[in-house]
Amino acid sequence: MSLPVPTMPKPPVGVVGLGQLGGSLAAALVAAGREVSGWDVDPAAREAAAARGVRVTQELGGVVVLAVPLPAMAGALDGLDVDPDATVTDLGSVKVPVLASVGAALGGRFVGGHPMAGTERSGHGATDPGLFRGARWALCLEPGTDLRRWLRAAEVALDAGAEVVPVTATEHDDAVAAISHVPHLLAAALAAAAGEAGPLALALAAGSFRDGTRVAGSDPAFVIAMVEGNAGPTAAALARVRAQLDRPWPDLVAAGHAVRTADPGRRVVRVPLDRAALLALGRTGGAVTQRLAAFVEGWVPGR
Amino acid sequence: MSLPVPTMPKPPVGVVGLGQLGGSLAAALVAAGREVSGWDVDPAAREAAAARGVRVTQELGGVVVLAVPLPAMAGALDGLDVDPDATVTDLGSVKVPVLASVGAALGGRFVGGHPMAGTERSGHGATDPGLFRGARWALCLEPGTDLRRWLRAAEVALDAGAEVVPVTATEHDDAVAAISHVPHLLAAALAAAAGEAGPLALALAAGSFRDGTRVAGSDPAFVIAMVEGNAGPTAAALARVRAQLDRPWPDLVAAGHAVRTADPGRRVVRVPLDRAALLALGRTGGAVTQRLAAFVEGWVPGR
Repeated sequence: MSLPVPTMPKPPVGVVGLGQLGGSLAAALVAAGREVSGWDVDPAAREAAAARGVRVTQELGGVVVLAVPLPAMAGALDGLDVDPDATVTDLGSVKVPVLASVGAALGGRFVGGHPMAGTERSGHGATDPGLFRGARWALCLEPGTDLRRWLRAAEVALDAGAEVVPVTATEHDDAVAAISHVPHLLAAALAAAAGEAGPLALALAAGSFRDGTRVAGSDPAFVIAMVEGNAGPTAAALARVRAQLDRPWPDLVAAGHAVRTADPGRRVVRVPLDRAALLALGRTGGAVTQRLAAFVEGWVPGR
Repeated sequence: MSLPVPTMPKPPVGVVGLGQLGGSLAAALVAAGREVSGWDVDPAAREAAAARGVRVTQELGGVVVLAVPLPAMAGALDGLDVDPDATVTDLGSVKVPVLASVGAALGGRFVGGHPMAGTERSGHGATDPGLFRGARWALCLEPGTDLRRWLRAAEVALDAGAEVVPVTATEHDDAVAAISHVPHLLAAALAAAAGEAGPLALALAAGSFRDGTRVAGSDPAFVIAMVEGNAGPTAAALARVRAQLDRPWPDLVAAGHAVRTADPGRRVVRVPLDRAALLALGRTGGAVTQRLAAFVEGWVPGR
């Protein structure tokens, strides 16, 4: 039986950057009954957010979410009037560099985050309040992270419909190198090599090519910032893929099939509000689905 | 203006193997008004085809389509009563080996084919009469191929809703190595390497990983037969992908994006019924869409 959290008002949320990710998050939180403010340098993005119930202002507090591209992250709060006690989190696709820049300036008030959502589309025209529903949302628990602030950031992710994966920034960057950044490089290499093969090959391209190269359609500037911002882990993960490609093909195909079709199942668990226990949940492949009074509820693989 | 082909009855079609590809082709041709017979070693596949209007018999003639897995191709006609003047074509995913086995036995009566269609599903339960609609269908024009028989096989593909790409078997195998066989190996390597990275990485896996590994869910026996049946061209295409991965990442990402987002357009052309002219159409990335009296109509990239 779940013990509900004692009713206390959740803090307001302020979203900086109202493009696809920030605009979608703001809209999802408005729909979930949260008080949401927001700002974007683009007046059209501000107008679109206002039409969805977001209060447009440069005065932000509570949980402030940085939803700007990686190169703009360090200066995202410049010129804004942010409550000095606000918890600050972000949606950037790499975490060690953001922790080193934004995190260093904010100390224990910063909680790095990364929702595993988004499409090749971008901008406020691509806003979708359902974007985070069922998505995994990595949230960093560093040795210096204030656990109460981490829980406030986690509640933002949960209210948007996501499941929260507790991680360290280093663990996160290693993991996304393997499952996001290297796939972008492979898609580019596959497309570029097929281009060398010529027009006949491209004319015959069918499902496996279209799927394997879909993310090569993403904005190159975004992809380059992502892989170069996580260069070490991405190079290591790419080396693991190259080593796999050296195996005899029957072994390689069987190994890939086994991983792709594995279904570890889900088993509901309760985890105390404790850094080590939360990180252990993430390392087993589990996620938090609910905050309760003295613990979180989540799941781990298993039956 | 199109000159229609003088009305003459098209030959009957006999389909050997009534699984996903053969069953879908038979159903599409019945819907297009062709007379279709078929056979499968599995009584359940025969019954499913009969329910779609296919005459189930071991006596086959006209254009006989071999729709069996690659390892069964050489023996596909064993025990069947096939008209000695029938044109024989196939749907196998590699062409040089099939040409060397089936083609050598049948001489000028054999026209190798490969529709770029199909899903991870298989068997007669996955039959879909729309499977070939808009798909490219490679059809081999070797020096010894009888052009009239090639046109009969092309009409089968066109009647199923496909566009016909004239190729040599060698050109085909090089092209599909780049756009189908290597993508299967990359998907397997990506999945296997992510499996090494551990449960946290797999728990964070999102769109780019799911797309990049989708074909790793295919039946491993099918994939292994495919890549080992086209080992030389696949190894060469894989080497080209590896060379792309050695480039600086910004160059790689930009090159992949350019190929993935290129839209060469389509320009309607007429091509005489001549081997060299048809192969030239295929090499420019074009395809045949219609057979006319003294030529075919098709398209090539361009505006």
